[in-house]
Amino acid sequence: MSQVADEGIMTIQVHGPVGLTSTGRVLITLFEKEVEHFEVVNVDMMNLEHKTPEYLKSQPFGQIPFIVDGDLTLYETRAIARYIEHKFGDQGTPLYGQTPEDHALTEQWLEVESHHYMGPVHDVVYNVCFAHLWGKKCDDVVVAAGMAKLEAVLDVYEDRLSATEYLAGSFFGLADMSHIPFTYFMIHLAHKGHIFFCRPHVNAWVAKIHSRSSTLKWLNMAGLAK
Amino acid sequence: MSQVADEGIMTIQVHGPVGLTSTGRVLITLFEKEVEHFEVVNVDMMNLEHKTPEYLKSQPFGQIPFIVDGDLTLYETRAIARYIEHKFGDQGTPLYGQTPEDHALTEQWLEVESHHYMGPVHDVVYNVCFAHLWGKKCDDVVVAAGMAKLEAVLDVYEDRLSATEYLAGSFFGLADMSHIPFTYFMIHLAHKGHIFFCRPHVNAWVAKIHSRSSTLKWLNMAGLAK
Repeated sequence: MSQVADEGIMTIQVHGPVGLTSTGRVLITLFEKEVEHFEVVNVDMMNLEHKTPEYLKSQPFGQIPFIVDGDLTLYETRAIARYIEHKFGDQGTPLYGQTPEDHALTEQWLEVESHHYMGPVHDVVYNVCFAHLWGKKCDDVVVAAGMAKLEAVLDVYEDRLSATEYLAGSFFGLADMSHIPFTYFMIHLAHKGHIFFCRPHVNAWVAKIHSRSSTLKWLNMAGLAK
Repeated sequence: MSQVADEGIMTIQVHGPVGLTSTGRVLITLFEKEVEHFEVVNVDMMNLEHKTPEYLKSQPFGQIPFIVDGDLTLYETRAIARYIEHKFGDQGTPLYGQTPEDHALTEQWLEVESHHYMGPVHDVVYNVCFAHLWGKKCDDVVVAAGMAKLEAVLDVYEDRLSATEYLAGSFFGLADMSHIPFTYFMIHLAHKGHIFFCRPHVNAWVAKIHSRSSTLKWLNMAGLAK
């Protein structure tokens, strides 16, 4: 990460707290693509900076993060990750694999993460780890429902990962990347790792995606490494 | 739509009821890309065919639709739409626009549809139009909450569409396409059109996306045209 605007090299700005799961998706993608020129601009969420009129000009839904790359302002983490993959397609990890089928299945599993995995995992992590920050109690009913949903989802993952090393095939791709931050929080902050560990193929996959140098760089940057 | 397997031309199979919103996304995309060789294979949802072990081999989450294209089986409608756009990139409508920025913003607004628009719209349409089919009552509290969320989301759309003709820019793309089926159901089945009509730029956009020949072909095919 370096800022070299005075040399005329474009620097991507990532607006969001480094330790947030959604910012994590973007930063891990930048590390995978070996992008050198980016900077993180913190957003003071505790003081609701993301709800100010100024912030809403860049992210009208008041969510985090967004990026600025020259004239382009872009939000939604999975859209940002796809953009980084396209822009830096010829360097770093090929996050769509090699073939049209790899590409299609990457998109499929990215949608699975988005529509099946993230919801219950978010419910668990938010309630167990963060609700108290907003003066709320952990809702045990919501946590239990989230864990039950996740059991069923991870059964599908276990079946898939018994046939392929990663979700979309034999390569680490965007779909795997998108699971990293919340899965790490489930294990190390919410202490719900058993739901992964008891499924041998899911367990092996989690170990692989969490030991990537991109993951470790993000965790170190965020002060989250265990 | 034609099946010409005996001439050696590959036919894409779309497994799902024609009139379902999710199948609609896939069929509208095929029409936009001027794909001639596909066939629809009905799935008997009322008899829970989509929950049978045989069906779950192709779509392990028991949802609808999936496609089969040669050796590739693919599910999640937005992933299927992207695949069709990539495979038939040189024909029909360029659903990612022309530039890297068009592409990035298409993905952003596709994610917005997925994470902000679909949830409340689904809550309204499901309760008003379909809950009774499963022996349930329309939950008025859920409908009211969905409408309130949608008001806020559509304020963002109105602002965006006051600056650009379509969501990602001056072109009809995948993000616009993805809104068509549920928006049509909101207006013509749930009779909640006022939430669109009262916003002039949203209203003009809805009129445009609903009058496309691809939309009309799907509605005719499904017997839904009004």
